[in-house]
Amino acid sequence: MAIPALIVYNESSSLERRDVVNGKQRVGYAAAQYVEDGMIVGLGTGSTAYYFIEALGNRVKEEGLQITGVPTSSGSRKQARRLGIKTCTIDEVEAIDLTIDGVDEFTGPEAGIKGGGGALLIEKIIATHSKRVIWIAEQKKHVPYIGAFPLPIEVVTEGASHLLRYFNKKGYHATLREREGQVFVTDLGNYIIDMALEEIPDPWALEQELRRLVGVVETGLFLDMTDQILVCDEAGDVHFIK
Amino acid sequence: MAIPALIVYNESSSLERRDVVNGKQRVGYAAAQYVEDGMIVGLGTGSTAYYFIEALGNRVKEEGLQITGVPTSSGSRKQARRLGIKTCTIDEVEAIDLTIDGVDEFTGPEAGIKGGGGALLIEKIIATHSKRVIWIAEQKKHVPYIGAFPLPIEVVTEGASHLLRYFNKKGYHATLREREGQVFVTDLGNYIIDMALEEIPDPWALEQELRRLVGVVETGLFLDMTDQILVCDEAGDVHFIK
Repeated sequence: MAIPALIVYNESSSLERRDVVNGKQRVGYAAAQYVEDGMIVGLGTGSTAYYFIEALGNRVKEEGLQITGVPTSSGSRKQARRLGIKTCTIDEVEAIDLTIDGVDEFTGPEAGIKGGGGALLIEKIIATHSKRVIWIAEQKKHVPYIGAFPLPIEVVTEGASHLLRYFNKKGYHATLREREGQVFVTDLGNYIIDMALEEIPDPWALEQELRRLVGVVETGLFLDMTDQILVCDEAGDVHFIK
Repeated sequence: MAIPALIVYNESSSLERRDVVNGKQRVGYAAAQYVEDGMIVGLGTGSTAYYFIEALGNRVKEEGLQITGVPTSSGSRKQARRLGIKTCTIDEVEAIDLTIDGVDEFTGPEAGIKGGGGALLIEKIIATHSKRVIWIAEQKKHVPYIGAFPLPIEVVTEGASHLLRYFNKKGYHATLREREGQVFVTDLGNYIIDMALEEIPDPWALEQELRRLVGVVETGLFLDMTDQILVCDEAGDVHFIK
């Protein structure tokens, strides 16, 4: 499977829609090699997962690869179907063999932030029911502390303003996510609050604190939820960091 | 404010739609006396809260009581509006002065089960932002251990079948709530799983266990979330149990 010299980046639910970043293409295409015939595959969401799904579509077309994709968002579902990848929902399968998804920032497989693309809840549900999870990312997303990337929290629409006020009282620099001047609504009908924390010294403690709050559906903290991370470094080389 | 001799029970989102229980009427009507002019009032959901809202509507009409209701469900919102009670959402107010809501089973103000009517998530959000909460119930709902009433868990639609299987593996006797042959969907677009546990010796431990699960939005365990409980005993007398 060849990596195209130029890929026109034309669709993604990611915030980085306009960035055409070669590292994302490389690692997304490389990840598609880990999918085997007959697998049930979790399909991530975002600008890096976009390339993985594209490459997977190529394999289905060129090699006749027989797989079933379980998309983590309506965007990824549309892309997969357009590329001829058969899809189903998480409730139509017993388990997922392999999920490949992007990550916004990570210290290692033990801790990362996801949700920049707004699909964190289904991403977390799908990761929970996956036998193996691989994150794909550019090397620069590997950081000593997570938190520079704003932490997304998926919250119930009712009462969201109260949670927002509560977070800001605690100094969490929280904002309600908007898109094109409208409040952003997730695939499951919730809102997202982004918290600019700069540095999260103990993500496990923060996760516990946040999940205890009434109205918080899920957080973008993915702790001990991936097996391996495939990265593309600045030289363009793709390798596992674990 | 007189309690009518016969009330035709004609609307509620409760499961007990067909039961016309005098105790529910008495305690619902009595609770309306605790609402004061100018208050922002949380309006519960279910067959007992139904009578409270009805009595409140009478006070608005007869006494010219000026209040704003914050309903916990679309059903209670419709009922309140029809009765001439001004309503708004939780996000349109700073805080709620007093919430009056039903409860399906309780050991005391420290622990109860709610959600028989399917509104547990908004009920919990509204209770969280209330300065004072009063539960209203028939005395028979006061039990030494909660759990005989099936515990409702509000879950994300995606992955609900996996949670259901997980709960049943743990021996929790879980079923997906249906209504008229269709899967029941809450006002916020989620499903409800009911767990027939018979007895919950440590509700705090169970709450922690359940809230940790990906896909669980909220549980029907209401722990340390009410100030007082107004009950109607078998003789028809209404009194606080705390």
